[in-house]
Amino acid sequence: MTALDDRDVRQEVTTGPIMGSEKVYHEVPDPESGAALRVPHRRVGLSNGTHFDLYDTSGPYTDSTADIDVHRGLAPARAEWIGAREPIGGAVTQLAYAKAGVVTPEMRYIAAREGMDPEFVRSEVAIGRAVIPANRCHPESEPMIIGKRFLVKINANIGNSAVTSSVAEEVEKMVWATRWGADTVMDLSTGKRIHETRERILRNSPVPIGTVPIYQALEKVDGDPAKLSWEIYRDTVIEQAEQGVDYMTVHAGVLLRYVPLTARRVTGIVSRGGSIMAAWCLAHHKESFLYTHYEELCEIFRAYDITFSLGDGLRPGSIADANDEAQFAELRTLGELTHIARAHDVQVMIEGPGHVPMHKIAENVRLEEELCGEAPFYTLGPLATDIAPGYDHITSAIGAAQIGWHGTAMLCYVTPKEHLGLPNRDDVKTGVITYKLAAHAADLAKGHPRAQEWDDALSQARFEFRWQDQFHLSLDPETAQAFHDETLPAEPAKTAHFCSMCGPKFCSMRISQDVRDYAEKNGLSTVEAIEKGMADKSAEFAEQGKRVYLPLAD
Amino acid sequence: MTALDDRDVRQEVTTGPIMGSEKVYHEVPDPESGAALRVPHRRVGLSNGTHFDLYDTSGPYTDSTADIDVHRGLAPARAEWIGAREPIGGAVTQLAYAKAGVVTPEMRYIAAREGMDPEFVRSEVAIGRAVIPANRCHPESEPMIIGKRFLVKINANIGNSAVTSSVAEEVEKMVWATRWGADTVMDLSTGKRIHETRERILRNSPVPIGTVPIYQALEKVDGDPAKLSWEIYRDTVIEQAEQGVDYMTVHAGVLLRYVPLTARRVTGIVSRGGSIMAAWCLAHHKESFLYTHYEELCEIFRAYDITFSLGDGLRPGSIADANDEAQFAELRTLGELTHIARAHDVQVMIEGPGHVPMHKIAENVRLEEELCGEAPFYTLGPLATDIAPGYDHITSAIGAAQIGWHGTAMLCYVTPKEHLGLPNRDDVKTGVITYKLAAHAADLAKGHPRAQEWDDALSQARFEFRWQDQFHLSLDPETAQAFHDETLPAEPAKTAHFCSMCGPKFCSMRISQDVRDYAEKNGLSTVEAIEKGMADKSAEFAEQGKRVYLPLAD
Repeated sequence: MTALDDRDVRQEVTTGPIMGSEKVYHEVPDPESGAALRVPHRRVGLSNGTHFDLYDTSGPYTDSTADIDVHRGLAPARAEWIGAREPIGGAVTQLAYAKAGVVTPEMRYIAAREGMDPEFVRSEVAIGRAVIPANRCHPESEPMIIGKRFLVKINANIGNSAVTSSVAEEVEKMVWATRWGADTVMDLSTGKRIHETRERILRNSPVPIGTVPIYQALEKVDGDPAKLSWEIYRDTVIEQAEQGVDYMTVHAGVLLRYVPLTARRVTGIVSRGGSIMAAWCLAHHKESFLYTHYEELCEIFRAYDITFSLGDGLRPGSIADANDEAQFAELRTLGELTHIARAHDVQVMIEGPGHVPMHKIAENVRLEEELCGEAPFYTLGPLATDIAPGYDHITSAIGAAQIGWHGTAMLCYVTPKEHLGLPNRDDVKTGVITYKLAAHAADLAKGHPRAQEWDDALSQARFEFRWQDQFHLSLDPETAQAFHDETLPAEPAKTAHFCSMCGPKFCSMRISQDVRDYAEKNGLSTVEAIEKGMADKSAEFAEQGKRVYLPLAD
Repeated sequence: MTALDDRDVRQEVTTGPIMGSEKVYHEVPDPESGAALRVPHRRVGLSNGTHFDLYDTSGPYTDSTADIDVHRGLAPARAEWIGAREPIGGAVTQLAYAKAGVVTPEMRYIAAREGMDPEFVRSEVAIGRAVIPANRCHPESEPMIIGKRFLVKINANIGNSAVTSSVAEEVEKMVWATRWGADTVMDLSTGKRIHETRERILRNSPVPIGTVPIYQALEKVDGDPAKLSWEIYRDTVIEQAEQGVDYMTVHAGVLLRYVPLTARRVTGIVSRGGSIMAAWCLAHHKESFLYTHYEELCEIFRAYDITFSLGDGLRPGSIADANDEAQFAELRTLGELTHIARAHDVQVMIEGPGHVPMHKIAENVRLEEELCGEAPFYTLGPLATDIAPGYDHITSAIGAAQIGWHGTAMLCYVTPKEHLGLPNRDDVKTGVITYKLAAHAADLAKGHPRAQEWDDALSQARFEFRWQDQFHLSLDPETAQAFHDETLPAEPAKTAHFCSMCGPKFCSMRISQDVRDYAEKNGLSTVEAIEKGMADKSAEFAEQGKRVYLPLAD
C-alpha cells in the first residue's frame, strides 16, 4: 500500500444518520462460530410509537456511535470468517462452499438482511443464480447478494478522470453513494494515482467494489490498445485482486469476428472496454487475449473469490442498435464463458445494455437466462429513448424498472449527466435515489415478500397526515421535507390534516376516514354491513354539521 | 368577460424559439376551403446542412415573427371553419361529422401534424377510439388528437391555489408548459378570480384546455359539498363552456353504493372530485346528481363540442389499493356513460390511475378498452411505487411509459412536488420534459412509424460528435448544453471528437468509425466482405500509426 498524502485523505466523509433514522443491528446467531452476526438496518422511528426497519447499505458511516477514520479504514469484520475456513477442493469461493452444501457466515448474514432462509441463499449461489461478491482481501465489506430471487440491487459508478477530483473526493463519493443506497460501487478511475484511489476506497468501503482492469492496463501502455498484452493485463488483475476488488468487468466476449457486425450500427461500439479490445483485435488480427487466456483468469479469480462481471463490450449505444446481431453474438459467447467459470467454482454475473426500447427489453432477459444459465444479469439502465440528454437517469429508470421486473438482479445507475459530462455530488445522489426507486418498483412487481410493506407504511402515514413519518420513510427524507416546506414552511403544517396541493377545503382523504370511523364505531366488518349502515350515516353526517373537511389549523 | 387588471396581465410570458430551433409551418391544402392549413413544427437546423422537424405544441409564442399580446389573445384561427360548418342532425361535434363521413379541417390539420392519412383520422374519431378536444368557443386552439393510434400526448396541470399566484402567473405557466411540450393544459384553479384566470388562459392558449367544473361549483357553495346541486353544477358548466373549455372532468361514476368499497383501503378516496361527490352522496343518501342528470350534461357538451373526461373519482391512491373493487366498479359505470355520450355524438375519454405497481398496469388498459369501447385512456402516471416523495415525476414516469405502451392515449404529468407542495416554474418544466420522454418511449415501443427517426437523428449526431446538433435535437437543449459545459466549458469542446466521460484516450466511438470508413473506402457492402477485409485492415491500422483515437483538439 502506497504511502498516502494527508492532504488527500482528510476526514471529509459524510457521517451521521439519515434524517429521522438511526442505525440498529439485528443480532443473528451463527451456529458455526457461536458468536452473533450483527446485521445493520436503518430504523425509522414513527410518531405512532412503532418503527420500520429498512435494508441498509451505508455501513458504519451512519452509525452515530462509530469511530470513523479514513486513514485507518473500516474494521475487517469478515477477517475471522475468512481465516477460519478450509478450502474445498482447493477453492475458497462462496460458490465452492455452496456447492459443497456449506452455509457460510456470509450466507447467514445475507439471509437475515433479505429476510430469507440461509439454506435458500446457499442453494441459489450453488446453482449460480445468485452471487456474493466478496474478495478475501476485502474483509471490510458487509455481505450482500445479487440474484433475481432477492432484492434488486443497484450499482453506482465513481472514478476520477484525467483532469479532476482527488483521492479524498472519490472516497467521499463512495460514502455518499452508499449512504443513499448503492449496493455496490464501481471504481472506474483512470489517470494518475489510480492505485492509491482504489486502495483508499476499498479500505473504507462497506459494499463490494467492482473495477474494469483493462482501464488501468491501458494506462500502463500509455493509452495504446495495440500495446496491451495478456501479461500486462494479468499483472493488473493480480494487483487489484490483492487490494480486494470484489468483482471485475472482463470484456472477454468481444471476439475478432464480431467487430465487423458493428460496422453498420448507428453508434458502433460504445463500451470503453469493448472498443479497447476491438482495437487490439484489429491491430493484431488475432483473437482477444481475454478469450484465449480465460481459464488462467479463472484460476486467479478462484484464488481470491473474485466474481466475474462479463462485460457487454458490444452493447447497443442507441435505440436503433438494440438487440442486434453483434449484441446477441457476444451474449452467446458470454454464455460459454459462464459455464467455464462455474466449472472453476468462480462466480459469474453478466452485463447487459444499454439502450433498448421497451418492447425489446424482455427478450434481453429471456436470452440472457437461456444462454448464461440464469447467471445474475447486471444492466446499465437500459435507456428507453435517446431524445432526452440531461434526463437520462429518467429515460434509463424507465427501462431499469422493467428489466428488473423481468429478472435483472442488479441495475447500474445512470446520472443526469450521462452522455454529457462528469457527475457531481448532487448527480450521484440523484442517480442513486432514482435507481433505488426503480429497483423497488421492480421488487414490487416481482412480488418480493417484503417489498410492499414499505409502500404501505408510507402511504398509511400519508393518509393519516403523519407528515414527519412520511418524510422519514421516504428514500430521500431531506428532499421530501424541503419540498413540503417550500409551500407550507410553518411547523404546524407538519401536523395539519391537509396539504398545500388541495388546501383545507378540498382534502380528499378526510371523507375516507369518515367512512372508516363510522364502520369501526359500529363494529361493522364487511362491506355489506357498511352498506346497510349508509342510511344512518347520512343522518349522522348531517348532525355533525356536514364537516367532511377539517377546519384550517389555527 | 370580466374587466382585467393590467397589473396582472402584463406581457410577462416567455417568447422566442427554443435554442437551436425555429418555427416553420407546413402548408397543407384544404380542399373544402381552398385555402392552405398552416401546420406548425419546431425545425432543428443541423450542422450537416439538413434539418429535422419536430411536433410542436408551443403555439405562436416560439414564432419570432409573431406579435404576442396577452390582452388581445391569440388569433381565432379556427373561427372561420367553425362558422362555415352546418350542424349534422343538430350536432356540431367532431364525432358527429366523423360519423357522417365528413373530414373536417381539424382532422386534416391533425393528419398533417401526425403524418397520417386524413381519412384515418376521421375513422378513428368516428369509432370513438380518438377524440379531438375542440370547443367551438375556443377558436384559438391548434387542432390535436388523443387516441392510441397517434402519438401519445401529455397534459400539464396548472392552477392557482387559495393562497398563491396571480392571473399573469397562470397564463405564463400555460405558455411555459406548452413551450416544453404539453399537448393539453388543465386549469385546476380554485379560490378567487377563477373565472378571469380561466378566461385569460383560454384566450391565449394554443392547446386544448381542460377543467374540473365541480371545483368552481364548490366555491359557489362556500366549500360545503352537501350544498351542491345539479342546478349550480349545470350553470357552472355552461359558464365554462361559453368561455371555451375543451374538455371537462366529470366524476359521474362515483355512485353511492361504491363509497363503502373504499372503507378498508389504505388511502381511501384520493381524488378531490371523487371525495366531493362521495360527500354529497353520503350527506343526501342519494345517487350522484352527475349520474342522474348525465343525459342533460351530454346535451350541453354536444352544443359546444366539449369532450367528456370521465373522472376516476375512486382511483387508487397507493400501491396497496391498486386494481381493487372500488376502482373497477367505477370503471364499469364509466363504460356505461361512455356509450350514452356517444349516442349523443359527444366525444369521451376515460381517466385512469394513479398508483399501480408494474405488474398490474396492463390489466388497467385491457379492462378500460373492454368496458369503455376503446375510448382514449387518460392516466395520471401511474406511480409504480410510493416510497419516493420528491421524485414522483420519476416513479410515475416509469408507470406512464408502460401504460402508454399498452395503449393509454394521454398521460397527465406529475411534478417532483406531487404529494408535497405546489409546483413552481422549474417543477412544471421538469414534469413536462419527464412526461414527453415517457410518451416518446411509449411511441417507440408501440412502433409509431415516425417515432424512431428522432432517436436516430440524435444518436447519429452523438456518434459523429456533432455536439450542438445533439443539444438542439434534445427535449431540453438548454439543460443538455449546460450539463456539458459544466465539465468542458470551452468552445472547442463543442466540436471535439471526445467528451468528458471517457476523455480523449478512451473514446469508444472512434473505433467504430474506423471500421466503417474502411468498409466504405473498399466498397464493401456486406458483413462477410468486411470480414474478408479484416487482414488488410490489421496492416493498414498499423501503418496509420495505430491511431484509433484522435489526438486532443488544440
